[in-house]
Amino acid sequence: MSLNPADARFAAHLRTLLPEERIRAPEPRYLVDPRDIAHGQAGLVALPKTVEEVAVLIRAAGEARVGVIPYGGGTGLVGAQVMPEGPAPMVLSLERMSAIRAVYPEENVIIAEAGAILADVQAAAAAANRLFPLSLASEGSCRIGGNLATNAGGVNVLRYGNTRDLCLGLEAVLPDGSIWHGLTRLRKDNTGYDLRNLLVGAEGTLGVITAAALKLAPIPAGRGTALIAVQSPRAALDMLSLARDRLGEGISAFELIHRQGLEFLAEVLPQVRRPWANPPEWCVLIDVGLAQGLDPEQALTDLFEAAMERDLATDGLIAQNEAQAQEFWTVREHLPEANRKIGSVTSHDVSLPLSVLPDFIEDARAMVAEHGSFRINCFGHLGDGNLHFNLFPAAGRTRADYANVKDAVRAAIHDLVVRMGGSFSAEHGVGRAKVKDLERYGDPARLTALRAIKAALDPLGIMNPGAVLA
Amino acid sequence: MSLNPADARFAAHLRTLLPEERIRAPEPRYLVDPRDIAHGQAGLVALPKTVEEVAVLIRAAGEARVGVIPYGGGTGLVGAQVMPEGPAPMVLSLERMSAIRAVYPEENVIIAEAGAILADVQAAAAAANRLFPLSLASEGSCRIGGNLATNAGGVNVLRYGNTRDLCLGLEAVLPDGSIWHGLTRLRKDNTGYDLRNLLVGAEGTLGVITAAALKLAPIPAGRGTALIAVQSPRAALDMLSLARDRLGEGISAFELIHRQGLEFLAEVLPQVRRPWANPPEWCVLIDVGLAQGLDPEQALTDLFEAAMERDLATDGLIAQNEAQAQEFWTVREHLPEANRKIGSVTSHDVSLPLSVLPDFIEDARAMVAEHGSFRINCFGHLGDGNLHFNLFPAAGRTRADYANVKDAVRAAIHDLVVRMGGSFSAEHGVGRAKVKDLERYGDPARLTALRAIKAALDPLGIMNPGAVLA
Repeated sequence: MSLNPADARFAAHLRTLLPEERIRAPEPRYLVDPRDIAHGQAGLVALPKTVEEVAVLIRAAGEARVGVIPYGGGTGLVGAQVMPEGPAPMVLSLERMSAIRAVYPEENVIIAEAGAILADVQAAAAAANRLFPLSLASEGSCRIGGNLATNAGGVNVLRYGNTRDLCLGLEAVLPDGSIWHGLTRLRKDNTGYDLRNLLVGAEGTLGVITAAALKLAPIPAGRGTALIAVQSPRAALDMLSLARDRLGEGISAFELIHRQGLEFLAEVLPQVRRPWANPPEWCVLIDVGLAQGLDPEQALTDLFEAAMERDLATDGLIAQNEAQAQEFWTVREHLPEANRKIGSVTSHDVSLPLSVLPDFIEDARAMVAEHGSFRINCFGHLGDGNLHFNLFPAAGRTRADYANVKDAVRAAIHDLVVRMGGSFSAEHGVGRAKVKDLERYGDPARLTALRAIKAALDPLGIMNPGAVLA
Repeated sequence: MSLNPADARFAAHLRTLLPEERIRAPEPRYLVDPRDIAHGQAGLVALPKTVEEVAVLIRAAGEARVGVIPYGGGTGLVGAQVMPEGPAPMVLSLERMSAIRAVYPEENVIIAEAGAILADVQAAAAAANRLFPLSLASEGSCRIGGNLATNAGGVNVLRYGNTRDLCLGLEAVLPDGSIWHGLTRLRKDNTGYDLRNLLVGAEGTLGVITAAALKLAPIPAGRGTALIAVQSPRAALDMLSLARDRLGEGISAFELIHRQGLEFLAEVLPQVRRPWANPPEWCVLIDVGLAQGLDPEQALTDLFEAAMERDLATDGLIAQNEAQAQEFWTVREHLPEANRKIGSVTSHDVSLPLSVLPDFIEDARAMVAEHGSFRINCFGHLGDGNLHFNLFPAAGRTRADYANVKDAVRAAIHDLVVRMGGSFSAEHGVGRAKVKDLERYGDPARLTALRAIKAALDPLGIMNPGAVLA
């Protein structure tokens, strides 16, 4: 079905339906993405203030056959928020629906509108002495609706799950313009198909999430942080097993860092304090949040000693206070920025079954070497089997030098991942950048079902056209 | 679209496609359900041994327009497994696909076929020094495929989530007869719509689950159990908050029990040992599983004392050994059997937002009293907001005496639940017993979407006809 552009006539029509200032010409900030995947285009930006206004916009888009791009914080890494070609769409920004509607500390529930900045949701939880555990590098600018639409991951998935695991209920406008009032605060509700999980992770292609009921967690009684040098990725995994046997769910984060990342930091962000003068090849950053009666510093010291005894760890830094814990996390949180400053040839957000992950790192390095000389920054959420496997030009070379091998090495990495039972997109989604990967690697029976679902819920094809499914 | 019966001709056709003994006349055990919701009928029972055989059966059913009832352990409580009217269906039992295909202790993953008995999955996990946390009264006979299809709950949801939260990947046959090979062991995989969560909880109406990759957990270092008399349901909730502030995820189960249940046990199952000679009106059964370095008995004693100080608890029994812990759990686990022996007028599996749950118990009791004199056994998974609110004849009266008020009081309870933001089916599902409730209470926009999904994935309507959606 062919779509029409969100042209001046359509904009004028919308201004008859809503207060005029809700409809604007698109500022440039709506048309770019952090990884320069595409330069977007749009006929207009709509800035609704209520779910009813969102419904009016979606109904109008349906009647006029105009494409709609739901827009959160614009921080997505796979181009779901930028449409470079086709009839100019309406960008529907949720930024004015940013209220925290309610907090229920005794239920461990918060209700936030889709446009709420993730950090503001975290702060509202903290003000009620609760934890909203979703945490990722862009938390100061990404919006919770986008986190939901992309099923965002981050550093606390090991303990608290992905964004979908934190969502109890949704309010959303479906592609037919109807409003689903589904803001339940229930932990159990087995009454028909799971529409919530269908919208979560659909990247705006099956409707617009306008608000969500989200789980909070008690703030653990005591927190501790350690940075531990390990022998290898396999030793890091063995240490994770050891840690979970001892501390169970108390392990909040378990991040793998390669020396290359620390060297990039030294090169382009020298103000970030280095934990080691001579960094080890591999280290893990561990966060624990423990119950009353346990001393986190002691628990980490005991864990470190047990890991030394088993020949897994070689050196350890255990934070003595909150400032030092923050210092360790600053290292981890600046890795993406350092990567951007260095400039990658190609970046991969992959996941593997935990037991084959060390083999993947070895095999992928060997395979990449056949394609040329790269600096590889491999880091990520080890406990979730999620690696950011990013390739950079060798010292003294530039990205342009790799123009003719880039596509081949990218495909070879994804082939290897899938052959080893992994995923070519662990936490970033499909967006527009990985539509062909989904087609290539997706299970055929599942793809047929996904296409049928899309056609059933959005028969006009107005919702984020060209994202996820071609 | 009208369906045809699974008649002798269809059976004969199936016998040309598969080894003859895969197709049988239905034994009576396939046609009954534990709550006598309906007396089922079937033209035949198919007993496939592989996913490919399941695919052959589904394709044949589609070609012949024959309804299919996927069948697990037959323990469902809402009649999804029994079809009392319409053209006789094919019952497709997964009982011969009961293998544990693999255990990956280092990944905390187990792969089980749909016909595996829940207790066997638990045992396979235990043999690998891991915990498969799903636990419910029928675990000795229910099958994991049925647990997935109904998104079963049980006593450990508070800590480990519902069945859907324990599922990483699925193998399934879709209504078109295609096989989805989706047995991923990944914790993160953001590559398109969440078909897994759509099949989980669909009660066999969107396809047949044939195997699943499931999450395991480390066995907590120390376990403790306590039975604590509390002032009221609100005091029980306050005590839960207190417990979580101190022990975080260490609380594995938090079950509310009313005196009525203990009295039923004394009446019909006198061999179950009574914890108290004079039982309190309300008590909670608490299970903790704690990290190394914490003594569960001491932690429960400290929690009890803190609850006494705050005037929440009145008496407490802390298990001194595994045998005593088992004794407390025996009480809880026999409540459903005692209920069956007494014979309920009407039973309700409801959930409420935690903070309104105490008000619901009070309001519902008052409302029920207006309809007549009942004995009410209200118990359940308090931490999940999930109550089993079951009405029984007053002493000396019979179920027949309530024939003319039963429907009205049932409707009044569901009305009240929904008015208070709750669900009329927390963990049992919709099946056939609650199809009208879903129609009445379901959000209209969501219902339209669910119907569109059903029509898109199962256009012939062969999968479990009449269940979930009318």
